Amino acid sequence: MSEVFKVGLAGLGTVGTGVLRLLDEHQALLEARSGRRIEVRAVSARDRSRERGLDLSRYEWCDDPAALAQRDGLDAVIETIGGTDGPALDLARACLGRGRPLVTANKAMIAEHGFALAETAEASGTALLFEAAVCAGTPILQTLREGMVGNRIDRIEGILNGTSNYILSAMERQGEDFAEVLCEAQRLGYAEADPALDVGGGDAAHKLAILAALAFGVRPRFAEVEIEGIRDVRAADIMQADRLGYCVRLVAMADLETAPGGGSPRLLQRVRPCLLPAGHPLAAIDGPTNAVLVHGDYAGPILIQGAGAGSESTASAIVSDLVALARGEARPSFSIRAADLRPAECADSGAREARYYLRFVVADRPGVLAELAAAMRDARVSIQSLIQEGESAPDGGGPVESGTMIALVTHKAPARNVRDALVRLSGADSIVEPPLAMPILMD
Amino acid sequence: MSEVFKVGLAGLGTVGTGVLRLLDEHQALLEARSGRRIEVRAVSARDRSRERGLDLSRYEWCDDPAALAQRDGLDAVIETIGGTDGPALDLARACLGRGRPLVTANKAMIAEHGFALAETAEASGTALLFEAAVCAGTPILQTLREGMVGNRIDRIEGILNGTSNYILSAMERQGEDFAEVLCEAQRLGYAEADPALDVGGGDAAHKLAILAALAFGVRPRFAEVEIEGIRDVRAADIMQADRLGYCVRLVAMADLETAPGGGSPRLLQRVRPCLLPAGHPLAAIDGPTNAVLVHGDYAGPILIQGAGAGSESTASAIVSDLVALARGEARPSFSIRAADLRPAECADSGAREARYYLRFVVADRPGVLAELAAAMRDARVSIQSLIQEGESAPDGGGPVESGTMIALVTHKAPARNVRDALVRLSGADSIVEPPLAMPILMD
Repeated sequence: MSEVFKVGLAGLGTVGTGVLRLLDEHQALLEARSGRRIEVRAVSARDRSRERGLDLSRYEWCDDPAALAQRDGLDAVIETIGGTDGPALDLARACLGRGRPLVTANKAMIAEHGFALAETAEASGTALLFEAAVCAGTPILQTLREGMVGNRIDRIEGILNGTSNYILSAMERQGEDFAEVLCEAQRLGYAEADPALDVGGGDAAHKLAILAALAFGVRPRFAEVEIEGIRDVRAADIMQADRLGYCVRLVAMADLETAPGGGSPRLLQRVRPCLLPAGHPLAAIDGPTNAVLVHGDYAGPILIQGAGAGSESTASAIVSDLVALARGEARPSFSIRAADLRPAECADSGAREARYYLRFVVADRPGVLAELAAAMRDARVSIQSLIQEGESAPDGGGPVESGTMIALVTHKAPARNVRDALVRLSGADSIVEPPLAMPILMD
Repeated sequence: MSEVFKVGLAGLGTVGTGVLRLLDEHQALLEARSGRRIEVRAVSARDRSRERGLDLSRYEWCDDPAALAQRDGLDAVIETIGGTDGPALDLARACLGRGRPLVTANKAMIAEHGFALAETAEASGTALLFEAAVCAGTPILQTLREGMVGNRIDRIEGILNGTSNYILSAMERQGEDFAEVLCEAQRLGYAEADPALDVGGGDAAHKLAILAALAFGVRPRFAEVEIEGIRDVRAADIMQADRLGYCVRLVAMADLETAPGGGSPRLLQRVRPCLLPAGHPLAAIDGPTNAVLVHGDYAGPILIQGAGAGSESTASAIVSDLVALARGEARPSFSIRAADLRPAECADSGAREARYYLRFVVADRPGVLAELAAAMRDARVSIQSLIQEGESAPDGGGPVESGTMIALVTHKAPARNVRDALVRLSGADSIVEPPLAMPILMD
């Protein structure tokens, strides 16, 4: 086992160069821990001449990343190119098709093509590993695949997008609205120039689809994740939630309903802003941190928390996969063989009950509250408490100011009833802006 | 790989029977995840006839646990007998000496004999695994050995004893003193009839010695852990800490100082009650939960949290080790080969600086404060703020009531100076009870 473990690396952005730095800095440590010396032999990137603060002359250069799949003598290839399709997917297919292990940080590619890639890997008897794709260096996939291997997983909940959590935490602390805090986050490097994937919930959904597949032994179903981002959450909502003893977090959650008749299990996957009570383990997660709470039937709830992004953290995860390969450990990508992953159907989220926080911005007009209350009653959603900003009477009789915010908390109701109430109100002239509905999670 | 993985089990207490239940209940799941059917073939316990709610007729019975090391055809043996020495250690030596993998939940045995056992295992080319020995089903050893394998670990901090954390949390919530809360904890099953190992810090020290060995690549040094338990903490201390914005937790911490001249590294291992600021990740850990914060140089701080005891959680950890063996993965017990574990020396804890919370109970006598202040000054510990219970003047001139509590917070000072101040005061007639010193940890 003293043989060198030879690696090809595609992509030399911050993640790829982070991997090179880590492997250099910790060469002796990694050799002691894995029993083998790990060496990068060949690299590929779009632009050879870009200044990266690294001496690339030590590595063979390939203009075409796909050449790393062909090049003789590599024991594994690392993909840090990114993108759902294109060169990353071409490289993955080429490596796995030829029986060459692939390590990737590419959550979009795994969420969308992970099942097909895992099938390809198994057909040629090789490994596809992607610890870095979910929460970077916070080792959650490994926890599911190994530490909790003896558990039926009942439910997963997580804060999977650091940008969104940074923004919500900052809105909470500073009392500022989304747009202002986003600008600040972009300036500080916590949000990308195009923040759509982060604040829209898509990035968290990619990670959730991967986690759900591993946890429940089902094929990843990214397309069926119900997604709602944080753009519509206002500082005023966070303040209201705080007064009620809650904080607002973008929560990704998944569970699996097993069909009583033995049919296909039904998978529920949702990403949406939620209210969390102060004692909930995810309520303490502040700033750009990621955290996943896994409910195992024997181990109980396990929380794992850490940085969810960044070149060093991502490099840490990639190297942990490399070490597993160097040690000769090649577990199935999704914990069980791809052929055994069940094709889950989509669970009916409308039937799930929760208490809800609802916020309306209403026009300055008499009878607005009566209209709201009637819609709720007709949809069979009962109101537990009503909070109205401004001084007007809480009854429909008095006038409410133009653009007045009305927030209320419902009793437990099925999601479909809440949606129905909002549909009933969607045409109302008195509603100035689309309402916001956030479920209240219990711990 | 479709061959059955055959296991022997020694000890049929709550942990052993938990393992049998888990393996029964999740047989199909474990086969899908490990690629092999895992079956217990032989069991051993002190009393065959004891009612355990289990049908033992399916297993071969051995009166002598050591027989499991000899019996033909077992792929691994699980030890849940407990105890530092005696039959558990005999069994471990017999198994590992014959090249039979051993899985154990025995923290005392691993903390004290783990290095010798790991050497035995390596000499005969077999595996010694003990995930269950630290925080039960919360997979912290695996996180160190695998998920964070690419990191130099800078520091570990943890809440490693559920009983102590339950008691401190309850004292905080209820404002009651140690003795009362301990009784309640014993009634509820959170504390044992003999709580010495838990509340005295020894149990946390066992776990810390194991964690430190894995994290830093050094031989376990249980005998050198500096241990202080929670018996002397009073409800009044917790209340004072709370007023200052801190909570009190029994914190286990370890770090490794590397010697500048290339000599032996120096290991610091301490278990003691500390003050944690509200924002510290360990401050949120409430009740009987365990949590470990690992500071990696690439992954950053990773927190892992969950149940730290209980038959089901412990069974989850034991089974994760079994699955690793069934998959043919046999990593070194302490992350690197036993022969490569460095013999660390003990670091000088006296040189470490911190702010301290000091509490004195003083006699009803004039000049007490002056005496305290002089001792602090002579030991070069400067007082940041002084809190005195009762109505007397904060200066040494006025009388203070008999048994009056005086608490103070120091500026940053080396631990040895604080100890020196307490030594200077140890003979003073005015000090009614031994003083309590707790460092203030920063996050």
